[in-house]
Amino acid sequence: MALVVQKYGGTSMGSIERIKNVAKRVAKGFDDGNEMVVVVSAMSGETNKLVALANETCEFPDLREYDTLVAAGEQVSIALLAMTLIGMGYKAKSYHGWQVPIITDSVSSKARIEEIPDEKVRADLKNGIIVIVAGFQGVDRQGNVTTLGRGGSDTSAVAMAAALKADVCEIYTDVDGVYTTDPNICADARKVDKVSYDEMLELASLGAKVLQIRSVEFAKKYNVDIHVRSSFNDNQGTMVTKEDKEMEAVLVSGIAYDKNEAKIAVMHVPDKPGIAAKLLTPLSDANISVDMIVQNVSQSGCTDFTFTVTKADFKKALMITNESAKVVEAKEVISDENISKISIVGVGMRSHAGVATKMFQTLAQEGINIQMISTSEIKVSVIIDSKYTELAVRVLHDAFGMSGK
Amino acid sequence: MALVVQKYGGTSMGSIERIKNVAKRVAKGFDDGNEMVVVVSAMSGETNKLVALANETCEFPDLREYDTLVAAGEQVSIALLAMTLIGMGYKAKSYHGWQVPIITDSVSSKARIEEIPDEKVRADLKNGIIVIVAGFQGVDRQGNVTTLGRGGSDTSAVAMAAALKADVCEIYTDVDGVYTTDPNICADARKVDKVSYDEMLELASLGAKVLQIRSVEFAKKYNVDIHVRSSFNDNQGTMVTKEDKEMEAVLVSGIAYDKNEAKIAVMHVPDKPGIAAKLLTPLSDANISVDMIVQNVSQSGCTDFTFTVTKADFKKALMITNESAKVVEAKEVISDENISKISIVGVGMRSHAGVATKMFQTLAQEGINIQMISTSEIKVSVIIDSKYTELAVRVLHDAFGMSGK
Repeated sequence: MALVVQKYGGTSMGSIERIKNVAKRVAKGFDDGNEMVVVVSAMSGETNKLVALANETCEFPDLREYDTLVAAGEQVSIALLAMTLIGMGYKAKSYHGWQVPIITDSVSSKARIEEIPDEKVRADLKNGIIVIVAGFQGVDRQGNVTTLGRGGSDTSAVAMAAALKADVCEIYTDVDGVYTTDPNICADARKVDKVSYDEMLELASLGAKVLQIRSVEFAKKYNVDIHVRSSFNDNQGTMVTKEDKEMEAVLVSGIAYDKNEAKIAVMHVPDKPGIAAKLLTPLSDANISVDMIVQNVSQSGCTDFTFTVTKADFKKALMITNESAKVVEAKEVISDENISKISIVGVGMRSHAGVATKMFQTLAQEGINIQMISTSEIKVSVIIDSKYTELAVRVLHDAFGMSGK
Repeated sequence: MALVVQKYGGTSMGSIERIKNVAKRVAKGFDDGNEMVVVVSAMSGETNKLVALANETCEFPDLREYDTLVAAGEQVSIALLAMTLIGMGYKAKSYHGWQVPIITDSVSSKARIEEIPDEKVRADLKNGIIVIVAGFQGVDRQGNVTTLGRGGSDTSAVAMAAALKADVCEIYTDVDGVYTTDPNICADARKVDKVSYDEMLELASLGAKVLQIRSVEFAKKYNVDIHVRSSFNDNQGTMVTKEDKEMEAVLVSGIAYDKNEAKIAVMHVPDKPGIAAKLLTPLSDANISVDMIVQNVSQSGCTDFTFTVTKADFKKALMITNESAKVVEAKEVISDENISKISIVGVGMRSHAGVATKMFQTLAQEGINIQMISTSEIKVSVIIDSKYTELAVRVLHDAFGMSGK
């Protein structure tokens, strides 16, 4: 008997018919003799509908209330799945985040899971009850509802798997697994059988949408094997797991792109120590994450300071930066929402030179200008004009010999 | 400074535009120097949408999960109203039932409020925070979400008012107050300025939809004055309050009708002691409330036993009764969903004879057959063919001189 955590996304839960399919799959797992914990997202479209309502109320909806609002979506899903299973003759019970409880910090809309006391869930599992848990949501120690950020249900699932020391965490989605790149823009894209936590972490943080970043961090930290697979068939998907020799032999294992960032550049700042801190502290105080940062070499006592933020944070970040720019006596602030980040990822890079160079050459051959560069041990990212996104992905996929053929 | 509890129903919360109007009214109360507690229902239509989803999952959705599902509607409302008020510059905070907590028993879908610890809400009020509470929902002592039955938000509001010893409980609705009867079927209907708890209790239990029965019971028990009024204008509405001399002078203060019942008749039961118990116990065990009960005089050792239940419980009640009928050796069970209950209500009846007779005569003159009769100190109810509902209400309204003219 194994303890299995399964997670179903919004598309898998998109209608009563689909929920019934999910129920059948869960029931099969139970009938096979497993203890089943199921984490679900809101029905597809529901969260967006709620967000749209929030945005109608005022320009910057209060985040505590925002979390209370959007958590309603998962509440609907858990109840529908539980009653479907009960209707099929199984014992099932739904859990809100606060009922488990999934205890988080108090950072509304971007909360981090701190602790999951598992006594109640374990007791139910022992009594042959299928446990259905609302993804994406938790509760802070003051009893406020929190949410974990978009895609947070993945993190909920991995965290539940870690807390319960589950044998496996299956993330069901609408694709067959992790691909070398987005098959929608590159017909050659190939499913990867196995990928390391670090690679997945980079791919996720770079815009590959199969798994939320924090879920991978969690999985790495607690050594939870994640099986990413499709809820529409029984194909083997992609295992996200510890790094091994096999993985290191591959130069580039995935190409990711992200159109969800925007660039802000603070121009002609008199070059004194502490500029970066003065510009970035107000942003982190407002809980805005800055992604790429470039500071140009100082010329004639002035420097340019450029960084990227998510499009969701862009409006607020620009407002704040316009203020900070006065403090550092910058000449002007310019911004660009039409950018795209293209990244190549692979643990093989560590032991192979020239990967970045090959990337820059390939893009140059197509006349694609690189605006910013950022590198880590196992990835290289560049910012380009967003109109070249698809072209860039395709030529890189080809250049690194990643096609399925 | 007064402590005001306001309750807004689904129609008042039906769109962001309407929620903004509610917010303005709440803000005005706060600006006038009052402590404000606001209880809200789900946006109109939302609960029905969720119920429809539940009914798609299986024939008899599990009630614990049903409550978790439908409670999502109020969760959306509280968050939207709170963020609207915060967007207007006020301090506001939403509370789920479990966050207050509104502690109920564990009877899913028909839970009764047992206790409302008020420390958290009081602390917020002291800090100048407008408190927004989800109506209709609570939490039992095991941490399960419960709901109070349709219209339960009224009860939530009165219970909050009682717990906080509020100065007034204003129930905002889409009508101007309590009418002598439904203005939609009787153009002569007149708004009543003041009505006693007992009259309101009868009117509510008989189908007048302005207030939920339990809310009136609560108000009577804790002596909470309820002001029923429209959220679309500033007109004075109807005060539901303690009985006084003035009220007793009126013979009939209201006429109610209820098309939401169905009749089940168990025919030719061998007349032995204990029939009623044998037929009714299985129903109450299934938590089904039986309304009117008539047992005919026994003829040739056999008796007929007839009762009514709500249409929502009808299918289940009929199933159960078909089983119990075998136990009491009845010849057959017949049922009728096309019935209507017409009731006249007034504390004046206590001291005036002939009110019931006049009702029966009036109906007879129109050729309306009476199928069942039930009386109390201050009301007379009859069951008739539902096609005569509107006619019956109009002729009775006229016969008892209740028109506004």
